[in-house]
Amino acid sequence: MSAEIICVGTELLLGEILNSNAQFLAQQLAQLGIPHYFQTVVGDNLDRIAQVIKIAQERGSRILLFTGGLGPTPDDLTTEAIASYFQTPLIEDAASLDDITAKFAQRGRVMSSNNRKQALIPQGAKVLPNPVGTAPGVIWQPKPDLLIMTFPGVPREMQRMWHDTAVPYLHSQGWGQQTIHSQTLRFWGIGESSLAVKVQSFFELTQPTVAPYAGKGEVRLRLSAKAASAEEAMEVITPVADQIRAIAGPDYFGCDQDTLAAVVGRALQRRGDTLAVAESCTGGMLGAMLTEVPGSSSYFWGGVIAYANTIKTQVLGVSETDLAQWGAVSAIVAEQMAQGVQRLYGTTWGLSITGVAGPGGATAEKPIGLVYIALAWAQGTMNWECRFGSQHDRELIRHLSACTALDYLRRQLAALE
Amino acid sequence: MSAEIICVGTELLLGEILNSNAQFLAQQLAQLGIPHYFQTVVGDNLDRIAQVIKIAQERGSRILLFTGGLGPTPDDLTTEAIASYFQTPLIEDAASLDDITAKFAQRGRVMSSNNRKQALIPQGAKVLPNPVGTAPGVIWQPKPDLLIMTFPGVPREMQRMWHDTAVPYLHSQGWGQQTIHSQTLRFWGIGESSLAVKVQSFFELTQPTVAPYAGKGEVRLRLSAKAASAEEAMEVITPVADQIRAIAGPDYFGCDQDTLAAVVGRALQRRGDTLAVAESCTGGMLGAMLTEVPGSSSYFWGGVIAYANTIKTQVLGVSETDLAQWGAVSAIVAEQMAQGVQRLYGTTWGLSITGVAGPGGATAEKPIGLVYIALAWAQGTMNWECRFGSQHDRELIRHLSACTALDYLRRQLAALE
Repeated sequence: MSAEIICVGTELLLGEILNSNAQFLAQQLAQLGIPHYFQTVVGDNLDRIAQVIKIAQERGSRILLFTGGLGPTPDDLTTEAIASYFQTPLIEDAASLDDITAKFAQRGRVMSSNNRKQALIPQGAKVLPNPVGTAPGVIWQPKPDLLIMTFPGVPREMQRMWHDTAVPYLHSQGWGQQTIHSQTLRFWGIGESSLAVKVQSFFELTQPTVAPYAGKGEVRLRLSAKAASAEEAMEVITPVADQIRAIAGPDYFGCDQDTLAAVVGRALQRRGDTLAVAESCTGGMLGAMLTEVPGSSSYFWGGVIAYANTIKTQVLGVSETDLAQWGAVSAIVAEQMAQGVQRLYGTTWGLSITGVAGPGGATAEKPIGLVYIALAWAQGTMNWECRFGSQHDRELIRHLSACTALDYLRRQLAALE
Repeated sequence: MSAEIICVGTELLLGEILNSNAQFLAQQLAQLGIPHYFQTVVGDNLDRIAQVIKIAQERGSRILLFTGGLGPTPDDLTTEAIASYFQTPLIEDAASLDDITAKFAQRGRVMSSNNRKQALIPQGAKVLPNPVGTAPGVIWQPKPDLLIMTFPGVPREMQRMWHDTAVPYLHSQGWGQQTIHSQTLRFWGIGESSLAVKVQSFFELTQPTVAPYAGKGEVRLRLSAKAASAEEAMEVITPVADQIRAIAGPDYFGCDQDTLAAVVGRALQRRGDTLAVAESCTGGMLGAMLTEVPGSSSYFWGGVIAYANTIKTQVLGVSETDLAQWGAVSAIVAEQMAQGVQRLYGTTWGLSITGVAGPGGATAEKPIGLVYIALAWAQGTMNWECRFGSQHDRELIRHLSACTALDYLRRQLAALE
């Protein structure tokens, strides 16, 4: 009794998008302990979708998870293909039509006749509601030993529908009684190989397994255990996680959904402190990360994007002489930016970034990837020089700059606790 | 005569990695004009790999591109599975063994007996050399109308082997003489279905084909044509793109890599205008989008992240009375924020955003998704009320807010041209 993931979309065959839906569903099936041996990608084509359903059944797949092809346009054919394969008529689901109509009304947009099509489901199927978009999916057993679920291709919608409806339904049918539960430990300020050397012995474990991942400056260790419940799995995971945290020290910053911004936010909140930022090369990215955290308004008051040098001097009060002498990308300008925003906004902390993100603006002395970060507070000012490497692109350098600024503030706040 | 991509690896079935190899090969096949209707993912299992080969042949795939399963460990089974399916013995390729031995010596590592296995290829196959790793692939015609190529799963190695050897080989066999070239038209401010209704007749075309995509508020139409070169393809695409642009009017904002921020930037640059932003709920995201564009410092001077109300009044000069009477999420506060930042920064334009991104902060009158955008310049001030829908999450509402603000400025700049 295994599941098969079937992703429908010519854009996948043209390589226009990465098939992140297959990865998401694969992870979810693994967590539910539902075996899964094949994934198929097929274009928006009635005959080929039918072929794929036939093959999936013949090779013993009993749960078919479809993504894509539920949209309003004529090349969205998944529902039609499935119904036609099982020679079942499509009927208009009144509740879905009402829901689609209401969503269009709410957004003040005109519903087209195409959208009516999205309310069609095979006779006998249940609607798999889409709380965030207009395309509902279906849950359908066209024959006793076959379960079909369809999801739109938009990852956000698909994931929400999976969690809200599909997983509870699978549980109710007796699937997923064993679970693989994971906890991810997150690190900043250490490379993957350096962390791997420190925690090497843990990679031999089987319960929990420990696996490293790295990307965009962050290193993660995923600890996974198989058990009857998440709680039981955590009993196996927690002692190992504690040992790893003790070995890693301050490079560990949080687990699972914790971001650097969220961790910094909690520390500020505990102290009753407030924060303002002054950004040059990141142009607002640091503020955007901080305000990604719901409730951040209680400690984050805002900031100044000082992209032009005149803004650095006129709004933040950076000295024109120092700017001329040392340049905008310098420790002294970073410090004056941090002091300036802290003073202007009246916050406990001022955090600033100025650097060369590229591709232009580099000199022999100030290469792409050179970034200064500074922190101002009642006790004084600190600054750090970072060299992120000129082989990196603009977006990565900006991302590393904003995260590293948060990380320095995190370490400073931790030192005060 | 079509190709099929077959990715082998249990890590794909567990969702541990994203299948970027499938996307890469799909793009490459599209560029070579080699049709490709199916992709399959299968685990490291002899029987299931054999099943997949059988199915691929039965459905008319004539080029099978395998990735993964060429490593030294016992669970790397791709070569063995293919040879066994065609009942062909594996033989040790002396040149490959020498190459593997040399690479181990070069890295100062001990070669294990497992690695010898990587030099085995089916009798009659050619080696597909791997210049960057130890696992070579094969090029094999086990029967007259079937071509098999195998690549390791490591993307860097696979891509190098594809470019260095596979593409020249395909060309030499008469494949890839035609190319599929695409242009993507991008739209903001219109829903997918409304645009589809307007341009419906184009969906019937076959040269170029026209296909819609939508995500995060943006709608795209991809025009693809098959031709001997990209230039010839563009001769077919351009007149259709022109017609679609004429029908869509101002909802069209750019093509291919054009972002709203880049389009706005070019328009500002043409006029010699400058811009500053004042952000509340987006917290810096609008600035981050604008500064994502290299060279944006010539027109974007920066902005004020006014997350706290005191910053709105003290730094931007929003009236305390109006703020108290109308609330921070109101048209009048948005206008005063835009005016304030335009005045403080001395720019041609001031663009502001204030809204309820959720999950907290909503009231009956001011639901999640209610956002005010305002624009201030010498001619006066304009504001817009947006209702993005309370079913959306914080990140999407913030993204829609920042993009919509750019879009309003884009339309205003276009009206002045």
